[in-house]
Amino acid sequence: MAPLRESSGDPVLPDPPQGPLHVARARASFPWKELALFWEGEDTLRFKKAIFSALENDPLFAHPRGSRLSVEKYQELNFLRCKRVFEYDFLPVGDMLDSLPRVLALIECLGMYDWSLAVKFFLHVLIFGCFALTEVSHGSNTKGIRTTAHYDPSTQEFIIHSPDFEAAKFWVGNMGKTATHAVVFAQLYTPGGQCHGLHPFLVQIRDPKTLLPMPGVMVGDIGKKLGQNGLDNGFAMFHKVRIPRQDLLNRSGDVTPEGAYVTHVKDVGQRFSESLGSLSSGRVAIVGTSVVNLKLAVSIALRFSATRRQFGPTDKEEVPVLQYPMQQWRLLPYLAAAYALDHFFKSLFLDLGELQQGLLGKDRSVRQAELGREIHALSSAGKPLASWTAQRGIQECREACGGHGYLAMNRLGDLRDDNDPNCTYEGDNNVLLQQTSRYLLGLLARRGPGGARIESPLKTVDFLDGYADILGRRFEGSSPEDLLDSSVPLAAYEWLVCYLLRESHQKLSREKRSGKSDFEAINDCQVYHCRPLALAFLELTVVRRFHEHTHQPRVPPPLRAVLRRLSALYALWSLSQHTALLYRGGYFSGEHAGKVLESAILALCAQLKDDAVALVDVIAPPDFILDSPIGRADGELYKNLWTAVLQENKVLERASWWAEFAVNKPVIGSLKPKL
Amino acid sequence: MAPLRESSGDPVLPDPPQGPLHVARARASFPWKELALFWEGEDTLRFKKAIFSALENDPLFAHPRGSRLSVEKYQELNFLRCKRVFEYDFLPVGDMLDSLPRVLALIECLGMYDWSLAVKFFLHVLIFGCFALTEVSHGSNTKGIRTTAHYDPSTQEFIIHSPDFEAAKFWVGNMGKTATHAVVFAQLYTPGGQCHGLHPFLVQIRDPKTLLPMPGVMVGDIGKKLGQNGLDNGFAMFHKVRIPRQDLLNRSGDVTPEGAYVTHVKDVGQRFSESLGSLSSGRVAIVGTSVVNLKLAVSIALRFSATRRQFGPTDKEEVPVLQYPMQQWRLLPYLAAAYALDHFFKSLFLDLGELQQGLLGKDRSVRQAELGREIHALSSAGKPLASWTAQRGIQECREACGGHGYLAMNRLGDLRDDNDPNCTYEGDNNVLLQQTSRYLLGLLARRGPGGARIESPLKTVDFLDGYADILGRRFEGSSPEDLLDSSVPLAAYEWLVCYLLRESHQKLSREKRSGKSDFEAINDCQVYHCRPLALAFLELTVVRRFHEHTHQPRVPPPLRAVLRRLSALYALWSLSQHTALLYRGGYFSGEHAGKVLESAILALCAQLKDDAVALVDVIAPPDFILDSPIGRADGELYKNLWTAVLQENKVLERASWWAEFAVNKPVIGSLKPKL
Repeated sequence: MAPLRESSGDPVLPDPPQGPLHVARARASFPWKELALFWEGEDTLRFKKAIFSALENDPLFAHPRGSRLSVEKYQELNFLRCKRVFEYDFLPVGDMLDSLPRVLALIECLGMYDWSLAVKFFLHVLIFGCFALTEVSHGSNTKGIRTTAHYDPSTQEFIIHSPDFEAAKFWVGNMGKTATHAVVFAQLYTPGGQCHGLHPFLVQIRDPKTLLPMPGVMVGDIGKKLGQNGLDNGFAMFHKVRIPRQDLLNRSGDVTPEGAYVTHVKDVGQRFSESLGSLSSGRVAIVGTSVVNLKLAVSIALRFSATRRQFGPTDKEEVPVLQYPMQQWRLLPYLAAAYALDHFFKSLFLDLGELQQGLLGKDRSVRQAELGREIHALSSAGKPLASWTAQRGIQECREACGGHGYLAMNRLGDLRDDNDPNCTYEGDNNVLLQQTSRYLLGLLARRGPGGARIESPLKTVDFLDGYADILGRRFEGSSPEDLLDSSVPLAAYEWLVCYLLRESHQKLSREKRSGKSDFEAINDCQVYHCRPLALAFLELTVVRRFHEHTHQPRVPPPLRAVLRRLSALYALWSLSQHTALLYRGGYFSGEHAGKVLESAILALCAQLKDDAVALVDVIAPPDFILDSPIGRADGELYKNLWTAVLQENKVLERASWWAEFAVNKPVIGSLKPKL
Repeated sequence: MAPLRESSGDPVLPDPPQGPLHVARARASFPWKELALFWEGEDTLRFKKAIFSALENDPLFAHPRGSRLSVEKYQELNFLRCKRVFEYDFLPVGDMLDSLPRVLALIECLGMYDWSLAVKFFLHVLIFGCFALTEVSHGSNTKGIRTTAHYDPSTQEFIIHSPDFEAAKFWVGNMGKTATHAVVFAQLYTPGGQCHGLHPFLVQIRDPKTLLPMPGVMVGDIGKKLGQNGLDNGFAMFHKVRIPRQDLLNRSGDVTPEGAYVTHVKDVGQRFSESLGSLSSGRVAIVGTSVVNLKLAVSIALRFSATRRQFGPTDKEEVPVLQYPMQQWRLLPYLAAAYALDHFFKSLFLDLGELQQGLLGKDRSVRQAELGREIHALSSAGKPLASWTAQRGIQECREACGGHGYLAMNRLGDLRDDNDPNCTYEGDNNVLLQQTSRYLLGLLARRGPGGARIESPLKTVDFLDGYADILGRRFEGSSPEDLLDSSVPLAAYEWLVCYLLRESHQKLSREKRSGKSDFEAINDCQVYHCRPLALAFLELTVVRRFHEHTHQPRVPPPLRAVLRRLSALYALWSLSQHTALLYRGGYFSGEHAGKVLESAILALCAQLKDDAVALVDVIAPPDFILDSPIGRADGELYKNLWTAVLQENKVLERASWWAEFAVNKPVIGSLKPKL
């Protein structure tokens, strides 16, 4: 393959530097540059290279970043870096809708550098300010939002008001220190006191010249978080703040000068699918965020594991820890997950683009509404699956790097802390999963005898039409070899989802028949029924899409084996969490089934271990962006570590408070309390 | 029960303050003060109260602490607080061996305040300095340590030397900024070049008057860690540093003035059990550390869950999130785990005390050696089980508190970060588990037909003597009610351990017969055999000890029901991770078995939910120590949160860099790179 070159003549994919990792790379079964090209496409590779180079060559983006900075310094740097990214104008805002792959690449590049920067940037892309929905006492339950907007016809103004401090807006990104305007969600009241529900209002919260709060606005920073401290999350309380009538963002409803409420949206279904669409985009973005964090973590841990030596067949000879089946089993499934979820994210992002196009085109079709529901179901379970997989994967990587993984400079801590909110914002993971199970149970209900076929625009649920037959299936694989292709776990997943769907449906009916309210009945079905149903359905979707992607004819022959192994490993490893259900429901029987599943996972790990470093080269950003001494591409583990250690603050200096040590020696027992 | 009073007349167990949690407390099925007395004992309650009060009344211990401080300020405060704790002399070092329960209480109290303080204090109790074993390139494999100590008879000195920077001592607690002396482990060489293995040497690294390094010593701080940043972890390199012959710590071996190596320890078995004893104490301490972290996390999350309201049967009425079966299932098993593991830790600590007494008494008996092996096996799996349970539990608590759990001030982040190293130091969890499985496989090998009975001083393995019969057992419980007592999961665990032991033994024999080296064969048995074997054995031991503790006659009648529910919940919840194996091996058969297990877990959660807050009152420290606004005893969630938010640094002030916002408006595209 002819090397891709930038206009500057530099290769788009430079060869990795020489060093201890060279040996590991030489063992790879495939050409990593060809996989990079297949995986990303030429335009994306060029675009990413350009962004990464711009950041690396700009002193403003020089280290340190993340938790090694004080919060104030971090927020200042992050603000300046955000402005600089606007100046670079890598992708003009106007072009975004027409070049989704570049939007993906931009999110990934900025996120790989620092999520505080990426989040701040994209919040500003939406509005040079912030979105204020959540209140201190209400997150998941948005119906409980208590900020009010009363319309006053005499002045044609809305009066924005926070009834008490439990109704203060809280957690709002960009609000802590920088935003001058906020989109505030409040209950809209018209004269006569009728409430029309939550509506968004544009409220100026600070004077752009002085950054001081506007009259009637109490705005501040909520304080240090576990991560993403470059982003200023804030709170705001409004004391009867008056804004012009025109500042109601009236896409779905408006108020006349006289104070009558009018809505443009006649069709409830349309409004529903619109609202689902806007909810989905945030969740889909979080899937991508989580995937990026997982990619970075496995890149660091696998390069470390290929160079870190510990123990060996003799006291003299030590082997790289990646040679141990235990280390392979701890890390390689997460490498496979990074690829599987990355593909899922990209495909879901394109699906979302189709939905958004339909919304802009005022598409009123049934298909458009169905697409909205399907994408809502996929994003509502996709966000939990991706964020939890990243959370566990990063933790496993941290532990797999031992003490060096616990050093802040190696970045696994920042990755864990920056990824953590993905489990919470845009809807708590466990609460969100209910959306997906409700969608699936709804499909089953609509079907029934003589009912409609089960099908959806993206075909993720079409297999459910064979529900009864699928439940009759049994596991066939008899040797580990049979399981080395993802078609086997794919079939098992179809059975599993049908089984959990039947179990959930029966359980819910029982609970309702027993006289419980719907509220109670649904809550009593979550733990062992609806929750695993939603997760298994999404795992199936990820497995199916990755299986199809890796088995399509246009996969270059040299890449087929390694991609199919990744597909099989992710599928089997995910499925193995459900082995108990496979046995319980009779899909598995006998000791053999469970054992071949385990053997196949270990066999795939062994097959992939020599490809691990090359697979990392495909997904890892340049060293400057990865920013982890133990994860650098040359594999000079200890040299890189020492260089970084000696650059830290006051490494060899005695502490400023050294004299306190010398002067007050402890006086044992001098303050002994009475026991 | 008559209220315990301190000499001051204050109650040892004051009533919780009034507030929203009052309602939850009123629903408890038992008197929490009686449980506190039964659980801790009167002396420990008094002792803890005295320590907590001393800290609370001393301004030096006033907040902030943890990650909200800069590393340098944190290390200074931690150093001063450590000296102050010495001055309080709560428990004279000389008395420690004779009052183990007070040692436990002291570790717990200091750790609940801040682990950086507790660790620094106990390192100083051992020596006013630090232990330097680990090197930058060698942790788990201590045989790989490369620091040398050559003896020079001409001057009767040892020459301590680091051959290169990969052999630098690294991670050493207290070494970064404060220690003046270090116990350095080095390979001892006598004239003629014979190596006698690792020995400890006392080396002065800093001048106590100036805290400047001694000649030939390069000593520094390794930089920021993910947690415990109040503790200064350091590195050191030695350039031919000469120390007197007497500074070889010669407990196990010594060198004569002329340079001959002599060892006092003739009996290899004794040396082995001595070394095991010293290894075990560190691991047992980490079990306790992890339990404390878990107690604090569940205390915060359960008080939050009992007061945080979200959703409800109607839009008007919202219920505390703890009312949701999902929230109960996420948190209550970890509450049960905190009690079960706390009891296990205390019992193992006393077992360790017996071992240490034997070592001091130069006990050469077979029993003493066996006790050393058994405690080594228990601590080598106990540390992984406890640290991982705490790690997952803290994460679950963080997520269960939603965004408020992500606020640094609520402490769940510090708990997670301070607990994290427990998975790594004193031996990587996965590596340590091999010690326990090797012990169990060894017992099976020694047995065989006509072989010795399987028994151990602490009787944790005696059941294995019934190995064959136990493997013939099958699950009997037929209704959830049958499972509401921990005797049922106890029986299942015995089967599970025997099954995994047989599977591991057979697998290992197969691998060896196939011609693999022992090194290879053992590595190939870890993932699905030896690892789960070691964990299941330890879970069984924890379940057994908690079962016996909660079923003994001296449990006060009012406490029996709640304690047995905790015992059953922990046992069933732990067992449910192994359901796949119970089915695979035939202990479970049919859909019913798996379903009753799930139903029993949910039933126990429902039974315990009204006792949760009272159970937390027993294990939670005073508010000042717990230091979490959302976890305060009064349950005034939002009032406490706002008070803390408004006390943070520069909450309402604009950023010092505000002007940069006003002056440089972004110039879109001005730096646009060529793509």
